Amino acid sequence: MNVDVDLAPLRERFAAEGGDGYLIDDDASDSDQRYVSGFTAPDPYQTLVTRDRVHLLVSGLEYGRASADANADSVTRRAAYDYQHLVAEHGQYEGKIRMLAAFLEDHDVESIAVPRNFPTGTADGFREFGLGVTVEREGVIATIRATKTDWEVDQIRASQRANEAAMARAEELIATAEIEDGILVRDGEPLTSERVTEEIEVTLLRHGCGLDETIVACGADGADPHDRGSGPLEPDELIVIDIFPRDKETGYFADMTRTFARGDPGEEARRRYEVTHEAYEAALETVEAGVTGATVHGAACDVIEDAGYETLRSDPNTETGFIHSTGHGVGLDIHEEPSVSPAGGDLEPGHVISIEPGIYDPAVGGVRIEDLIVVTEDGYENLTDYRIGLEPTAGTRS
Amino acid sequence: MNVDVDLAPLRERFAAEGGDGYLIDDDASDSDQRYVSGFTAPDPYQTLVTRDRVHLLVSGLEYGRASADANADSVTRRAAYDYQHLVAEHGQYEGKIRMLAAFLEDHDVESIAVPRNFPTGTADGFREFGLGVTVEREGVIATIRATKTDWEVDQIRASQRANEAAMARAEELIATAEIEDGILVRDGEPLTSERVTEEIEVTLLRHGCGLDETIVACGADGADPHDRGSGPLEPDELIVIDIFPRDKETGYFADMTRTFARGDPGEEARRRYEVTHEAYEAALETVEAGVTGATVHGAACDVIEDAGYETLRSDPNTETGFIHSTGHGVGLDIHEEPSVSPAGGDLEPGHVISIEPGIYDPAVGGVRIEDLIVVTEDGYENLTDYRIGLEPTAGTRS
Repeated sequence: MNVDVDLAPLRERFAAEGGDGYLIDDDASDSDQRYVSGFTAPDPYQTLVTRDRVHLLVSGLEYGRASADANADSVTRRAAYDYQHLVAEHGQYEGKIRMLAAFLEDHDVESIAVPRNFPTGTADGFREFGLGVTVEREGVIATIRATKTDWEVDQIRASQRANEAAMARAEELIATAEIEDGILVRDGEPLTSERVTEEIEVTLLRHGCGLDETIVACGADGADPHDRGSGPLEPDELIVIDIFPRDKETGYFADMTRTFARGDPGEEARRRYEVTHEAYEAALETVEAGVTGATVHGAACDVIEDAGYETLRSDPNTETGFIHSTGHGVGLDIHEEPSVSPAGGDLEPGHVISIEPGIYDPAVGGVRIEDLIVVTEDGYENLTDYRIGLEPTAGTRS
Repeated sequence: MNVDVDLAPLRERFAAEGGDGYLIDDDASDSDQRYVSGFTAPDPYQTLVTRDRVHLLVSGLEYGRASADANADSVTRRAAYDYQHLVAEHGQYEGKIRMLAAFLEDHDVESIAVPRNFPTGTADGFREFGLGVTVEREGVIATIRATKTDWEVDQIRASQRANEAAMARAEELIATAEIEDGILVRDGEPLTSERVTEEIEVTLLRHGCGLDETIVACGADGADPHDRGSGPLEPDELIVIDIFPRDKETGYFADMTRTFARGDPGEEARRRYEVTHEAYEAALETVEAGVTGATVHGAACDVIEDAGYETLRSDPNTETGFIHSTGHGVGLDIHEEPSVSPAGGDLEPGHVISIEPGIYDPAVGGVRIEDLIVVTEDGYENLTDYRIGLEPTAGTRS
């Protein structure tokens, strides 16, 4: 477990606003709650951070697991507040408010700070019961989470190893496919985005990772950075593969993108690959503690614009060229702080970020090259161990 | 796509409260938004339901996919409101509020209803800008979603077929394992919960399904209904297997549980299995349109209490016996309306619910039997096609 969580900045924040505590009311989809509580559950539960304690409120079904696993000073079951009875008497909405009000009262909390995504239904209900509710607007937990502990970097590194095994499997499938009638073929069947995605995801599962989506996008599909891709893969076309596995136990993500082409994608596609690779290197060269994410993003934009392609900096409305930011933080969420974009602030040691410039055009296809790095005092450590090259090769890794 | 979505009850609700529209501000984790918009994305986006239209606001990265896939009358990019510029000038918090306020103004919305889980940060920000925000407290979309369209039932049925293939694989592994030194062994290695879970999840992936968690819990692990299980599986012990796959394309879940034992789990365990099976049948017999979920739950409790075991009805604080509700709705969420519990209201045709009584005690282990059904006018259709039996057999399905 991540034992080095430092909630002092959160406590300073809500204390400064006169709050007695900070309450999270969410479920497994909320990584802030997972980070603070060291616990996650499919159904909603509550985490209360007071000036010196962390308290959990969970369903009876979660009580055993929470008591054993959670990073909390106390775990209470809803039944302790006769939740079923409150719902029967006051309905689901008010019943929940009454249960939570009693939970807060038990911990001497009369005024709370809440995250921006705290349920308005709960907040308005509290206010009707006379509890003070103020929104913590800066997202201080996201800032705390942005700087990874050594333990967290190890978890991300482990997910990245699974990522590399999956990418190697995908590259091998593409490298060793036959070319028949203008498509890639394996075992007599078309090699489709769907087949490659399935092999990637099975490999990730075998390595203990789950996943939401995987991108294997060929040709024009690859020109839409969020298109997952579909149908037969083709020779002489750019194939973008973006894999972002999440360790099933720890919840930490990794993120990596490579672009491949079987046969000859053409001079323009090869040039875009080289320019993207140069932008990637230029961005990496600028990374160190104290440099802003905006500066790193600017370094990638410089290379791409100098090569004659549009960016969102040269044309905010462009739909071709470099149409996303250079990177983002990666941790318990696939997209988290810090931002490596025009809005990106100072990078700090322990920030784990992706560096992923790309150039897109439906007429040519998409190119994206992405590594995952951790910022250090005087540069960075690259958490990615995977060759960069347009031509797919088999068996570079087992 | 689910084209038969009927938003009339939602529109009646917010119109009755004087609202011009209903706004959802969430991400892929919010199934209400997915249901209403016919779209889902990893990062937050907004869905506005007005009296006669549905409008989406998405990032540039999602614009292409949303325009092609969403079940909306209009799709707008954040860039249309100079989002990056607003964030640069006013910060992330106020920049987002200003963008959304402009989006609402474009659609002549001055007062909105929002879901209970709407972000308090956004709601309070709107209020500071003079926009009226009221919480829709009843969860009307959850009520709409509870009644599945024929298309939705077909999607759930498809996920259930994947579920059955995965359960058959797990049952085969247990049925054909060797027994050595008091544990189950395959290929010379201990057959662990982790190995069986991996085979289940690979099978689900091969059938187009993703998953968050799978339960393969042996002995005392199985007595905690949410314990996922770990370590070597043992003979003469109850093994609870609960699989809830989600189709990766449609997002619809299925849910099924079986309990197996290799060798002889003992007379008490066998009795608990029979009582659970009787409770399952008693609950099913009561299901039809117009009967309440509370009545169905009561039928299961009657059987279990008559056999001499505790339930949460006979002892709200018991930690052994039947310590959860009889079932829940299943759809875009694994747990949704309606509830088959003491609080459960009238069942209606098209409600898809699980029926899953169980009996638990760390000293004996856990038993749970779960099928997924759709309520009809005069009874139910069982969406589950899988044998119920304590003794695992191989090759009953391929």
